[in-house]
Amino acid sequence: MSNQSDQSLLKDGWLPGVKSVGFGGDYNPEQWPEEVWAEDLDLMRRAGVNLVSIGIFSWALLEPRPGEFDFGWLDRVIEGLHGAGVRVDLGTPTTVPPAWFWQQNPHVRPVLRDGTVLATGSRGICCPSSPEYAEASVRITTELAKRYGNHPAVSLWHVHNEYGAPISECYCEVSAASFREWLKARYGTLDALNAAWGTAFWGQTYYEWTQVGTPALSGTSSNPAHRLDFARFSNEELIGCFTRERDVLHELAPGIPVTTNFMATNCPSMDLWKWSAEVDVVANDHYLTAADPLSQVGLALDADLTRSLAGGRPWILMEHSSSAVNWQPRNLAKRPGEMARNSLSHLARGADAILFFQWRASRRGAEKFHSAMLPHAGANSRVFGEITQLGATLGDLDAVLGSRVRAQAAILWDWESFWAQDLDWRPSVDLAPRQQVREYYERLWRDHVTVDFAHPTADLSGYPVVLAPASYLLTAEAVANLTAYVEGGGHLVVGPFSGVVDQDDAVHPGGWNGAVRDLLQVSVEEVLPLPAEGQVALTGDLKGRIWAEDLQLLGAETILEYLDGPATGRAAVTRRTLGAGTATYVSTVLDHQVLGAVLDPVLERAGVTVDRDLPWDLELVSRHAEDGTEYVFAINHATTPVDLRVDGTDLLTGETCAGSAKIPAGSVRIFRR
Amino acid sequence: MSNQSDQSLLKDGWLPGVKSVGFGGDYNPEQWPEEVWAEDLDLMRRAGVNLVSIGIFSWALLEPRPGEFDFGWLDRVIEGLHGAGVRVDLGTPTTVPPAWFWQQNPHVRPVLRDGTVLATGSRGICCPSSPEYAEASVRITTELAKRYGNHPAVSLWHVHNEYGAPISECYCEVSAASFREWLKARYGTLDALNAAWGTAFWGQTYYEWTQVGTPALSGTSSNPAHRLDFARFSNEELIGCFTRERDVLHELAPGIPVTTNFMATNCPSMDLWKWSAEVDVVANDHYLTAADPLSQVGLALDADLTRSLAGGRPWILMEHSSSAVNWQPRNLAKRPGEMARNSLSHLARGADAILFFQWRASRRGAEKFHSAMLPHAGANSRVFGEITQLGATLGDLDAVLGSRVRAQAAILWDWESFWAQDLDWRPSVDLAPRQQVREYYERLWRDHVTVDFAHPTADLSGYPVVLAPASYLLTAEAVANLTAYVEGGGHLVVGPFSGVVDQDDAVHPGGWNGAVRDLLQVSVEEVLPLPAEGQVALTGDLKGRIWAEDLQLLGAETILEYLDGPATGRAAVTRRTLGAGTATYVSTVLDHQVLGAVLDPVLERAGVTVDRDLPWDLELVSRHAEDGTEYVFAINHATTPVDLRVDGTDLLTGETCAGSAKIPAGSVRIFRR
Amino acid sequence: MSNQSDQSLLKDGWLPGVKSVGFGGDYNPEQWPEEVWAEDLDLMRRAGVNLVSIGIFSWALLEPRPGEFDFGWLDRVIEGLHGAGVRVDLGTPTTVPPAWFWQQNPHVRPVLRDGTVLATGSRGICCPSSPEYAEASVRITTELAKRYGNHPAVSLWHVHNEYGAPISECYCEVSAASFREWLKARYGTLDALNAAWGTAFWGQTYYEWTQVGTPALSGTSSNPAHRLDFARFSNEELIGCFTRERDVLHELAPGIPVTTNFMATNCPSMDLWKWSAEVDVVANDHYLTAADPLSQVGLALDADLTRSLAGGRPWILMEHSSSAVNWQPRNLAKRPGEMARNSLSHLARGADAILFFQWRASRRGAEKFHSAMLPHAGANSRVFGEITQLGATLGDLDAVLGSRVRAQAAILWDWESFWAQDLDWRPSVDLAPRQQVREYYERLWRDHVTVDFAHPTADLSGYPVVLAPASYLLTAEAVANLTAYVEGGGHLVVGPFSGVVDQDDAVHPGGWNGAVRDLLQVSVEEVLPLPAEGQVALTGDLKGRIWAEDLQLLGAETILEYLDGPATGRAAVTRRTLGAGTATYVSTVLDHQVLGAVLDPVLERAGVTVDRDLPWDLELVSRHAEDGTEYVFAINHATTPVDLRVDGTDLLTGETCAGSAKIPAGSVRIFRR
Repeated sequence: MSNQSDQSLLKDGWLPGVKSVGFGGDYNPEQWPEEVWAEDLDLMRRAGVNLVSIGIFSWALLEPRPGEFDFGWLDRVIEGLHGAGVRVDLGTPTTVPPAWFWQQNPHVRPVLRDGTVLATGSRGICCPSSPEYAEASVRITTELAKRYGNHPAVSLWHVHNEYGAPISECYCEVSAASFREWLKARYGTLDALNAAWGTAFWGQTYYEWTQVGTPALSGTSSNPAHRLDFARFSNEELIGCFTRERDVLHELAPGIPVTTNFMATNCPSMDLWKWSAEVDVVANDHYLTAADPLSQVGLALDADLTRSLAGGRPWILMEHSSSAVNWQPRNLAKRPGEMARNSLSHLARGADAILFFQWRASRRGAEKFHSAMLPHAGANSRVFGEITQLGATLGDLDAVLGSRVRAQAAILWDWESFWAQDLDWRPSVDLAPRQQVREYYERLWRDHVTVDFAHPTADLSGYPVVLAPASYLLTAEAVANLTAYVEGGGHLVVGPFSGVVDQDDAVHPGGWNGAVRDLLQVSVEEVLPLPAEGQVALTGDLKGRIWAEDLQLLGAETILEYLDGPATGRAAVTRRTLGAGTATYVSTVLDHQVLGAVLDPVLERAGVTVDRDLPWDLELVSRHAEDGTEYVFAINHATTPVDLRVDGTDLLTGETCAGSAKIPAGSVRIFRR
Repeated sequence: MSNQSDQSLLKDGWLPGVKSVGFGGDYNPEQWPEEVWAEDLDLMRRAGVNLVSIGIFSWALLEPRPGEFDFGWLDRVIEGLHGAGVRVDLGTPTTVPPAWFWQQNPHVRPVLRDGTVLATGSRGICCPSSPEYAEASVRITTELAKRYGNHPAVSLWHVHNEYGAPISECYCEVSAASFREWLKARYGTLDALNAAWGTAFWGQTYYEWTQVGTPALSGTSSNPAHRLDFARFSNEELIGCFTRERDVLHELAPGIPVTTNFMATNCPSMDLWKWSAEVDVVANDHYLTAADPLSQVGLALDADLTRSLAGGRPWILMEHSSSAVNWQPRNLAKRPGEMARNSLSHLARGADAILFFQWRASRRGAEKFHSAMLPHAGANSRVFGEITQLGATLGDLDAVLGSRVRAQAAILWDWESFWAQDLDWRPSVDLAPRQQVREYYERLWRDHVTVDFAHPTADLSGYPVVLAPASYLLTAEAVANLTAYVEGGGHLVVGPFSGVVDQDDAVHPGGWNGAVRDLLQVSVEEVLPLPAEGQVALTGDLKGRIWAEDLQLLGAETILEYLDGPATGRAAVTRRTLGAGTATYVSTVLDHQVLGAVLDPVLERAGVTVDRDLPWDLELVSRHAEDGTEYVFAINHATTPVDLRVDGTDLLTGETCAGSAKIPAGSVRIFRR
Repeated sequence: MSNQSDQSLLKDGWLPGVKSVGFGGDYNPEQWPEEVWAEDLDLMRRAGVNLVSIGIFSWALLEPRPGEFDFGWLDRVIEGLHGAGVRVDLGTPTTVPPAWFWQQNPHVRPVLRDGTVLATGSRGICCPSSPEYAEASVRITTELAKRYGNHPAVSLWHVHNEYGAPISECYCEVSAASFREWLKARYGTLDALNAAWGTAFWGQTYYEWTQVGTPALSGTSSNPAHRLDFARFSNEELIGCFTRERDVLHELAPGIPVTTNFMATNCPSMDLWKWSAEVDVVANDHYLTAADPLSQVGLALDADLTRSLAGGRPWILMEHSSSAVNWQPRNLAKRPGEMARNSLSHLARGADAILFFQWRASRRGAEKFHSAMLPHAGANSRVFGEITQLGATLGDLDAVLGSRVRAQAAILWDWESFWAQDLDWRPSVDLAPRQQVREYYERLWRDHVTVDFAHPTADLSGYPVVLAPASYLLTAEAVANLTAYVEGGGHLVVGPFSGVVDQDDAVHPGGWNGAVRDLLQVSVEEVLPLPAEGQVALTGDLKGRIWAEDLQLLGAETILEYLDGPATGRAAVTRRTLGAGTATYVSTVLDHQVLGAVLDPVLERAGVTVDRDLPWDLELVSRHAEDGTEYVFAINHATTPVDLRVDGTDLLTGETCAGSAKIPAGSVRIFRR
């Protein structure tokens, strides 16, 4: 983390002034008359709130006219919170510039790929390359840092909000000019750019830098390397917006960590491996996908990814919801107990703060139908009751603070690869990399195997098993890393259409999996997408979907074969050994229901034990303190109770469990052992 | 109606010069050589046509160059019609400005929400705030009024055509400036606007009027109050276009009523409660929805809504079709007898004129595949035969003119509420307010209960039963009105997600149904949208769809309970009594098939008797003359004959029915009693 | 063909210097280092390649700055090919102007109908009316013609690439001005234009030419005649781009034929009847539709259409694929043998050259996942093996060169009619003219009846049977032609919704089929589209779909009747005789499975014999040499072998077949007899 060792912001494992598990949410008192504020503080106290995020959307109130500031109301809010013992996560309000900014700078409105110029009136939209925006955002950040940088209530800076959503790219001329500067820095010469982008294809050779523009909408498919670089550029432009403010805050308010709230799986345009290197502490927003019948698996994946972004260190769940959100097609409310299970699953997976959007439901605006800690129905509601109960539970979990999760497997996750594969004109629209990852993840979730996520170039040596369900783009460095992992005794499983292209979206020489051919000892001679809804039968009574491949064995052995479809009689799943390590290749799409046929032997070989007697829907994760104490989180998603084999003490009730404990339906128990 | 009492335009219940039920249609002789005109007049006489609409799309022919007029051909058309005894509904042609207008004023082309500038070349598109359009439309209207205002053939002015279709909003800068003036008039101060719109949410506070623009497309959801006000403004801008022309006509051609053709259910952007206050007589266009297997129910709903807009007075069916239209995906032709059933259903529901689009099918242009009174196949066709038959039938119905329909129930209908609910980010995309209304309406249609529609603030005291299937937006005034209705002994039924917001789309304090909580004696603690295709079981073997709610009883009793789903065991339908009145709340979506379980007891309690022996598909409506005579319309939509218990005289055959009459399959009979 | 007799380019039936069946593909050596080129030539020799297309996308490399040329690399490529005995099809690279062109002329980027301005960065997009583009494209073409016009390796000029794809229309102001000139030439006066377009409808009369624009997106349906003329204009503007370059090439490089590659069925915006009159030899690109389970039928249709465009003369298959393409949703790979079957089906249907896109799979750019002759997997792959095998086979087929296909039936095909029917607001979105043609074609394909395609005004006298499955637009000239055909003893079958409009999309007087009413002796009184998924039962246990009609018999007899649906009891299929000829009318949509009930009697009456013992999936076509020799191509698409009754010699093995020959599953045999 940036400047981390310099500033030792996290030396006690947590935020300055926060002694317990963080609990609270976004607080927007500016939407309410001041007489409501006192009630807020009273109810926060009742609920056990100890941390709130404020000021995130307040630029227009704080700077009503350019350079003219009004901090009075915010002073009163912070004083009130301070008096009530609630710590402050203070926002820089740069996600929504005031109306005067747009009036002065209409050209800063972002331009979409098809040329549409977006209007203001919502949030999070601004050309990230705008110098006018840079100047204005530094000005307000500076003023905030000066005024509140020493305030004893302030524990954290919350820069902007959900960078990258709803818009992460701008195709205006200012962006184009900035993109050219970025390209000059990346490539040095136009010859290098022409080579990397393969501009000889379709006659796109550039002879002057000024000829290079954004990859705006054309008549048909645009150059994929051009688009991939524009995605990288856009990510980095927004990182630049963040670090510009962060540096102001570090300078003017040293000692207070700076973060911004990620959306680990909900904002595909941000490469969070790059972002996590810049924040002082990782914070994440997560919302269930209502249409996902097993949304708790998506939550766990998101939390594990966030912990991985944090390098295993504690992180902040900056936003989740007490019940329904308002922006999905059908916004299902959480049922009794679900919010607690969600919250404690995040905690079990490494979060040391559980915050919500938002404290009090808004009466007006675009999100008034979003649930809140204090819902429209008020303090006598089911939701506020469960919030209060959760606050009490978290208040008993100080011991867990700072403890770490230990994973038995890693899954490769690379935003650049997903960006590349998401471009158009790929072999099959059905082959969706994130869904591939989800299937592998869900298999292990159901097997109670804890997982980290890792970039393909990360140190993998600590993991008995590494899965690469969808590694379309692999650089030479990544391949070397994976090879070394297997050589070192690791067990690698690779999914279909992996190792196809390099960092320029150029096909690796040597077939469809040129990058990993030697490692896997199998060559993909041809990819064989299936028709819509198509299936292929494999040995072992398995079904593959979406995809098959024509494999040539170069030394790998056949594990499963295709029994029908375009590759009938050919290998479908292969394995090669390399010293104590193995590399397994899966050339079709296997859903979590059947993936065990491939993964079980790998887990066994890797020494990862799976308790097959446990019901699949009992979520089981542990955190480990430095002193060796283990905190076992048992979250029962089923409608029937489960008997868990466990020795230890119930952290909440103090009850001692010798050998077995009952986890009631829909409940969570936490054991110390 | 505007100036109605001044001008007494309708003192005889009908248009000047029109002595019978109006019959005819749009007549566009300018599309044909003059030699065809004589044949037209001859065939009109054969068919019994007595009223035609002309000149609606003739601006380019009447004013070929700015300020240069050519009325010769129109003089000849009108003389011809006058000679044939056909009355004229004379259009102001302002729905399509001539090509020279667009050449001079390209900036008047409307701008869509995403910035797209529409081209000319179709119809009905123009920035409604344009001063250039205002000037040009007043000029042509003035010339028409001067030339034809005293012509003895002219019975009606037909201003423009179908205001609001296809485009009702314009996002150009001229519109933005006009919107600001409208907002100043509505709010007086920016403080009031900021409060009403809740601009504190997402940092949108305005400090200068010039900072306020249209709610054009932004990166994500725009301020809903901003959008709702823009919908109101756009409706009123078009009303302004109408009244500008109407006032010219009233001044220069006194004594001739002025109308414009509404589309009661087909143009959601116009608030016709406001429009109906401005026209001298209500006129409506209706077309069947081919994909609706029971399109006759949609027709009846539309006709009842139109009559309600007319305050119960007679109205004009300005357009419907002899057979298929041409703009739906699959344009089903009407089958023999269907056109007569449609026409007489409109008449039964209060129309005193039955007109068609159009007299003679066009050979050219966008609507040549739209049916006409005189189809491509000519005068020897089935369609023209049925038209002639209908003309004869209508010619025998003078007695019905001016008689009124008496409704036993009212259904609340509020365009502003629909606009608000139609905005994005509502709890469920499946909860469609107009479909909700249709289900309640269809239940009563099948029960032969005649229905009016009413604005929530209208006088409801005359109705034994009032239904509010979808009243998302209710003002304090509306709630007071409904409360007084129930207190006065009325029986009110309220559908789910009602009373949620006020006129600013702001959530009423006190839960999800804050506005009606006291009236219903039930509080909606949380709304519980169901997954796609989801259902919930209720007591009484019923199924709800789309939606459930978590209800807290504040005094109401439980009528039906949820047996499964997210509200298992809680109340689904409740009732409270208040004096002699009752208020029933239905918290889920019940289709017409099962709504009887809720509505039947209410009807019974309200003294509305339902004849359960009648087949559901025998449409039965009555009109009542001032002298007490009742005209019973029996429209048999079934393929088998029906025996109807009736005493009276068949208005068409003169036959006397004592106790019973047979209504043949697919036929209509009208009885006087 | 243009200048064809002058230049006698095809006097030997083939391209200068090409002595065998052409075999090869697009060759893009500029995408590879020069060291790869030698390997290319070596592998081409191994595969039997004798013709490649080069330089198609090379403008930016050939003219790096305006007027500055670099031909060195191309010289070396051509020398290498020449040395290896590979003939050159030399592209003019005008489908992708260089980056400097766009930098100088940003206004030449095409404008879509909704106003979107496309960015550069793909291919094939340019305002076709641009004078700047004209100048630049003539300049590069001139330079190429001067440099290579006498090169002994050059056998063919390949102008541009796939004109009309992805964009064929431009709505910019320059295009509008050019459109006005085109309209002046077509109509002479505005009165004539106003009459043809029916501008009296919706008030669109023009009084100045400058008032006429493009039919850009309006609020609702635009004038269909306006749109149809714009489609004609756009087609002709692109033809003008082609002939501009062709004329340069004819002048500077006489003796070398000039072509451009059509997409017979894949680019609906080009009227290839007009294009085929301008090329010296017809060339076509064809790709299978992966989602079509019988894509070989689509291939045959496309090949037959191409041969018909060539007037029966040999043509060039300029592009097809060795395996999968990359631009469909799911790009299915060809299975072993499929590529050979595809190639030989094209050959059997008149192609004298079988070329591929492309020689060597690209590592970079938008099409790197498109298959190639030399795939990513290299020369040891299945695909390259089958390519080599195909090269050997084609090398044995010199005898077939120049022979002709004889068709027993013609199907009418008219792009203008399809354009007109494709416009909006037609009676049913389900009635798709090309799909109608496919059903009739597939019926005959399964019956082994060989088919030509013909324009409705073409000489049809040589065909025993003519089918008009979808002739919505028929001019008076076309109707006279069809009438003369039947009078001359021909047997005509007409599908529903035919003869409806004239060249201006104006309904012919006299009902819905006014143009063909007299010929068919049946009048369509009303069209009766069916609901979505609707069917109608006919006599003979048949089902019709999508559509029915209300027919009045004027002399025709009833062949089949409607048994249910909106036309119950009326005629569905009729026939009239006229001398020895007959005219059959089919008023509903019959799929190929049931069309035999209508077509079998017609074929029998016309003396076309169908061998009902042959399996339907044995494709059987013959080419006939001038000396009377017949080459029978038997392509077995089934998974079981077929015994074919045939006398003759196997052209590949030399084996003599007396009476019978076995065609193995998935194989092709060619017999001389």
